[in-house]
Amino acid sequence: MSGKTQVAVLGGGSFGTVLANMVAEKGLPVRLWLRDEAQVRNIREHRENSKYLPGYRLAEGLEADTRLGQVLDGADLVFVAIPSGAFRKVIRDAKAWLRPHQMIISTTKGIEADTFSLMSEILRDELPQASIGVLSGPNLAKEVAARQLTATVVASDDAALRERVQTVLHTEYFRVYASSDMYGVELGGALKNIYAIAAGLSSALKMGENTRSMLMTRSLAEMSRFAVSMGANPLTFLGLAGVGDLIVTCMSPLSRNYRVGFALGEGKTLDEAVEALGEVAEGVNTLKRVKEKSEQLGIYMPLVTGLYEVVFNGAPVAAVAKMLMLNEQSSDVEFVLPRSQDGVTGSA
Amino acid sequence: MSGKTQVAVLGGGSFGTVLANMVAEKGLPVRLWLRDEAQVRNIREHRENSKYLPGYRLAEGLEADTRLGQVLDGADLVFVAIPSGAFRKVIRDAKAWLRPHQMIISTTKGIEADTFSLMSEILRDELPQASIGVLSGPNLAKEVAARQLTATVVASDDAALRERVQTVLHTEYFRVYASSDMYGVELGGALKNIYAIAAGLSSALKMGENTRSMLMTRSLAEMSRFAVSMGANPLTFLGLAGVGDLIVTCMSPLSRNYRVGFALGEGKTLDEAVEALGEVAEGVNTLKRVKEKSEQLGIYMPLVTGLYEVVFNGAPVAAVAKMLMLNEQSSDVEFVLPRSQDGVTGSA
Repeated sequence: MSGKTQVAVLGGGSFGTVLANMVAEKGLPVRLWLRDEAQVRNIREHRENSKYLPGYRLAEGLEADTRLGQVLDGADLVFVAIPSGAFRKVIRDAKAWLRPHQMIISTTKGIEADTFSLMSEILRDELPQASIGVLSGPNLAKEVAARQLTATVVASDDAALRERVQTVLHTEYFRVYASSDMYGVELGGALKNIYAIAAGLSSALKMGENTRSMLMTRSLAEMSRFAVSMGANPLTFLGLAGVGDLIVTCMSPLSRNYRVGFALGEGKTLDEAVEALGEVAEGVNTLKRVKEKSEQLGIYMPLVTGLYEVVFNGAPVAAVAKMLMLNEQSSDVEFVLPRSQDGVTGSA
Repeated sequence: MSGKTQVAVLGGGSFGTVLANMVAEKGLPVRLWLRDEAQVRNIREHRENSKYLPGYRLAEGLEADTRLGQVLDGADLVFVAIPSGAFRKVIRDAKAWLRPHQMIISTTKGIEADTFSLMSEILRDELPQASIGVLSGPNLAKEVAARQLTATVVASDDAALRERVQTVLHTEYFRVYASSDMYGVELGGALKNIYAIAAGLSSALKMGENTRSMLMTRSLAEMSRFAVSMGANPLTFLGLAGVGDLIVTCMSPLSRNYRVGFALGEGKTLDEAVEALGEVAEGVNTLKRVKEKSEQLGIYMPLVTGLYEVVFNGAPVAAVAKMLMLNEQSSDVEFVLPRSQDGVTGSA
């Protein structure tokens, strides 16, 4: 080991795999945990995760394993790339093998369904002594695998963790910026999926560049408003995990959220859209949860409200868009000029 | 006139024309100043600005005129849509006809070449008593003319001016948000052209979504850093005149700035790119001025510096990109986590 950082990655989806392999290619020892025996055998024999990243060669330093204890033993840095629905369960299983003060970094973009917890909150609940961080940004795994220039953000209160992650992950094509605003960075990744639905909708309706740009900008206003109510810094949304991730998600016509929106814009119902896709897009669930939460907390989110009516109640998009144009708030950035509750109603 | 707001628009380019006509369509009296007699006749006879917006019908309430005094007489609100090179001259000419305390709003995105003045600074210089505002945002004139849903920002210290502009311009398809940060709103519109060149470059080099999104986000970081040094609020860049306008400009392959960048990315020299375009793109001039200014003021702008080397000194893009990936700063949003001067250089 001779002082080399030992890295563990939990989760062998496309992002977990590419993260593990980037580090292994730098000559650091990396262990990747996957639940599925067949996938582990496949990686060992063919040096490839054929399910998620066919054709992407995995470095020899990457060891795949189904045994959590084996993977976590001696790890200095643990990245958790597990879907939000299974995240808490895996952390609970891992608990027995983790040492106190270990550095644990979530790369999962999502919100736990029942508790509305962010992944860092789950880590804090389950591992009160650990040093916790999150990694998020405009990071399509396939493009990272193709060594396209990519940037991401590590956010943590712990400066040592931030520097460790920057050093371990940094390559000629992968750059890691730092932030101290964990909730802001996580909320960017979780909330953006909602607005990708709106982007798909507007595209199906052949709305122009002005409209698309307005939608994305007002989406950022809502995301930051919501995040601030949870203690985040609105300026985080000016960064990679905010506007950066929103741009990638809203511009990629292949994302599931975008496609659900597009189908709705073509006049399909949600059931028809989901049937065509074969699964429920993450943004649909997030939309429902954020709608409830914003009402509980009294946060003004006109796009979420309007989108909810379109997605779940079949409201006509044109009517909702018109309503938004007439009634939405009148401050561009409310952290610059405080928002007034009343719209513009005076006559010229 | 019976209490109706009287509006004057100086400048009959595409944006001035569409602005004037939107107001005229609401039944308000509007006078549009153009320098060119033939264009004025054309508008009077055919109700069309055939040079800039062919096919766009101009309402009867819009009066075109070449006489500044006639146009400004009795105007409550004066919009100035004159290119930055001629802006000060027109304001000086108009001075004799303007009353003190009149409301003057610039819609021009640019920086005066010799003085590095923003348009609002020119207005302040020349008209110390006027109430001053600026209008900026992701507003392609052709799309506004086509009644695509569009949003813009009016920025002013004067709340009465902001409300007046919101009320006068607001329609079912055009929405005006307010801000108190004039410099921030103006700088967004002026600086974005630089980064559209970078967007064109990256597109010619077939860079992926991760890279494009990283470029736009790091562009915002630079724009806001520069703006803050001039007294603006970084949060303004989260709004329509910041990220909103940047998105439209970087996503429109037809913009001149984008096309210059694309040509450079294909291996053309600046001279060849300009020759192919038939004119110098605004962003090329802005790049030069901002490069000088940032060096004078000691503001860290790695993208501007790198782009300058590519555009003016023929530096190879790949080498510049690599340098940026290795050396750029390490904070995502420096207003959240202060930026350290040194890059990440430690070994894992």
